[in-house]
Amino acid sequence: MPNREWPRSMATLREDAMTEKTDAPRPSRRRFLTGAAGLVAAGAAGAARADEKNLPPNIAPWSKTLGDGVAVRPYGQPSKFEKDVIRRDVQWLTASRESSVSFTPLHELDGIITPNGLCFERHHGGIAEVDPHDYRLMIHGLVDKPLIFTLEDLKRLPRVNRIYFLECAANSGMEWRGAQLNGCQYTHGMIHSVMYTGVPLKLLLEQAGVKPNGKWLLVEGGDASGLDRSLPLDKALDDCLVAYRMNGEMLRPEQGYPVRLVVPGWQGNIWIKWLRRIEVGDEPWYTREETSKYTDLMPNGKARKFTFVMDAKSVITSPSPQAPIRNKGFLVISGLAWSGRGKVARVDVSLDGGRNWRTAKIDGPVLDKSLVRFYAEIEWNGEPLLLQSRAMDETGYVQPTKDELRAIRGVNSIYHNNGIQTWSVKANGEVENVEVG
Amino acid sequence: MPNREWPRSMATLREDAMTEKTDAPRPSRRRFLTGAAGLVAAGAAGAARADEKNLPPNIAPWSKTLGDGVAVRPYGQPSKFEKDVIRRDVQWLTASRESSVSFTPLHELDGIITPNGLCFERHHGGIAEVDPHDYRLMIHGLVDKPLIFTLEDLKRLPRVNRIYFLECAANSGMEWRGAQLNGCQYTHGMIHSVMYTGVPLKLLLEQAGVKPNGKWLLVEGGDASGLDRSLPLDKALDDCLVAYRMNGEMLRPEQGYPVRLVVPGWQGNIWIKWLRRIEVGDEPWYTREETSKYTDLMPNGKARKFTFVMDAKSVITSPSPQAPIRNKGFLVISGLAWSGRGKVARVDVSLDGGRNWRTAKIDGPVLDKSLVRFYAEIEWNGEPLLLQSRAMDETGYVQPTKDELRAIRGVNSIYHNNGIQTWSVKANGEVENVEVG
Repeated sequence: MPNREWPRSMATLREDAMTEKTDAPRPSRRRFLTGAAGLVAAGAAGAARADEKNLPPNIAPWSKTLGDGVAVRPYGQPSKFEKDVIRRDVQWLTASRESSVSFTPLHELDGIITPNGLCFERHHGGIAEVDPHDYRLMIHGLVDKPLIFTLEDLKRLPRVNRIYFLECAANSGMEWRGAQLNGCQYTHGMIHSVMYTGVPLKLLLEQAGVKPNGKWLLVEGGDASGLDRSLPLDKALDDCLVAYRMNGEMLRPEQGYPVRLVVPGWQGNIWIKWLRRIEVGDEPWYTREETSKYTDLMPNGKARKFTFVMDAKSVITSPSPQAPIRNKGFLVISGLAWSGRGKVARVDVSLDGGRNWRTAKIDGPVLDKSLVRFYAEIEWNGEPLLLQSRAMDETGYVQPTKDELRAIRGVNSIYHNNGIQTWSVKANGEVENVEVG
Repeated sequence: MPNREWPRSMATLREDAMTEKTDAPRPSRRRFLTGAAGLVAAGAAGAARADEKNLPPNIAPWSKTLGDGVAVRPYGQPSKFEKDVIRRDVQWLTASRESSVSFTPLHELDGIITPNGLCFERHHGGIAEVDPHDYRLMIHGLVDKPLIFTLEDLKRLPRVNRIYFLECAANSGMEWRGAQLNGCQYTHGMIHSVMYTGVPLKLLLEQAGVKPNGKWLLVEGGDASGLDRSLPLDKALDDCLVAYRMNGEMLRPEQGYPVRLVVPGWQGNIWIKWLRRIEVGDEPWYTREETSKYTDLMPNGKARKFTFVMDAKSVITSPSPQAPIRNKGFLVISGLAWSGRGKVARVDVSLDGGRNWRTAKIDGPVLDKSLVRFYAEIEWNGEPLLLQSRAMDETGYVQPTKDELRAIRGVNSIYHNNGIQTWSVKANGEVENVEVG
């Protein structure tokens, strides 16, 4: 029978035989992967702790006493040890919290699904608290049959399930004039990615019957800001969803409970939350949120008319200012890439500010208009790095540098900054937001 | 400019012109889809409410007042209106809540991602509350170099992100002797599906160096039950993960925080939570949890030796006893299917207890050893139904009936019941768990 006890001490594990079956050579700084990578020997982080009462060979209290039973928390919560993994706002950024933003902690996440509780918030009039029994969606305007749907009506209809990223047009917006916010939660955290369940908007429009001169939709929220945007009919008929679920459960209040519009690949502002009304018209409405806001103000003082699509972009989430490097040796660089024009085709990583590039490994599903997770493995021994990533999508588009963007767009805008991000890694492992070139 | 107000009343919307752009014929019971399906006209659910203060043409309070601002809830919660969407236990099922189960509310979900807060729980000694700083994973036994990993060590290593279902071997276990629990939350709710982030177990074993006579692993939890199981080396080297994240964030406490084993397609009991120790040996250990428990007791009184894989299975989640039909007319039948042997190839649905079958539509990604969501659209006008679904996987395996299972396995076991579930739909839309044949 095997030895069920921990070895008498970690030193024992390292130096001596553990069981009769083990010849137990001393664990050494073995090469972790063939090639350049190596791993500092296991257990290193524990060695510095003065209080080792829970460490082997001692038996920790959680192995000796019954824990909480089932259904103590009918709806579960994260561990108390993860209390710092939260959305954060930047108080000086906005005048009110009702029209403000809180950011997804990208540096604390991995994979491509954002848990619902950590999806960034952007409200214009606070979180509308909609009673689902009284929820109504109206479709009217240039239609054969104006319709009002209850939530139950919508839930009865055919639906689809799709993973899409949602990025605010102002994500990275504070970085146009130079590196400013020191952490990818703040520079890139106005993005999340969940699986939506919703009715194709096309089905609802077919029910109402769009008249031949109907070419645009006004989509309007039921919140206090009555946020409204103009949506081209072609996009509405292509892949938009009237969604009521995220990651299986009903939408969270701050994501538009009970119903939001999903506009895959397009700027988040048009993904109307607390969706109240869809009016079909023959031309755009040019609302405040698509004229004075959410458009690109060019160097000549004119604004571009509609910039709906979020172009290919990427960011290294670890290491990053909030996730410094703690150990020399083997290091996995991890990041996210996405494109509003389809699938990500490739991601490159540079260690020297864009002079040399290597192709990163994309892991997990590569879906249309969804996040992808990329990794690059290196050996790091304290040398300064200028870390960058650049995304390429299936259209052949390559994520530009910030200076390439500025050369065309100037610095008047806070929107649609998809420039390459640079993180400066110091000898002590700390990371800063910097500009190169 | 468009009319921004709701029509004066819903009756107005139905009877009269709404705006100058609308010719507004009366919405009728229009056929929803070509073919057999039709949709009861929109707005039906609202008509019965006596209190219409929040309904059009009145402006609801949430459109008139600022809501909560950002970061009021740094970690978000579901809407207060969804307070009944929770895990539930069955108190008579187990003697203690520390060794018990709470079930995923499958009837309240859609898509294939389970939100972390609703993933079912099954504990044998309660939820171990592991301090992540003191967490250690030991690999020892028939290895060249015994190793101890801290959590930081594991997080530094190469990782992958995969969506897998996790099903308890006892899921549907109360149904062996006949239909018993009245709701898919209870009959099938010991399953969930999330995206895991973890280190391939193969990498860790390569670090330790498995000796030539090493063929089995003992995997042991750090909870009070010290739950341990024997895992064949081949499976460990194939697709097992030492996982620390689910849906992007760290594992929830009840799912093994900070580290659990992921054993794709295999019974949940071997997905050791609070993973503490991996010992390499030359034969199975035959622990309690794989001999007297979690094996199939056959009619002759002998138990099968190891039934690791969860065979193909499916269930209709709506309609179901907890999700009755509320309206006649167009109806979407929705359900889940899965197979521990790979991808689901097809799902059929029967309305008449298995005499006739139609192929359901599978929506969304079809991934290896993951849930798939299926839909079947019918027209329902109050006739009794005996709803069934059956899954087929890429190996050609077809989900059996319960009687086919009983003919071979008898009714001594509570494990590995993947028989076809039958829901009886009554004329009033209520649904019951029944057996046919």
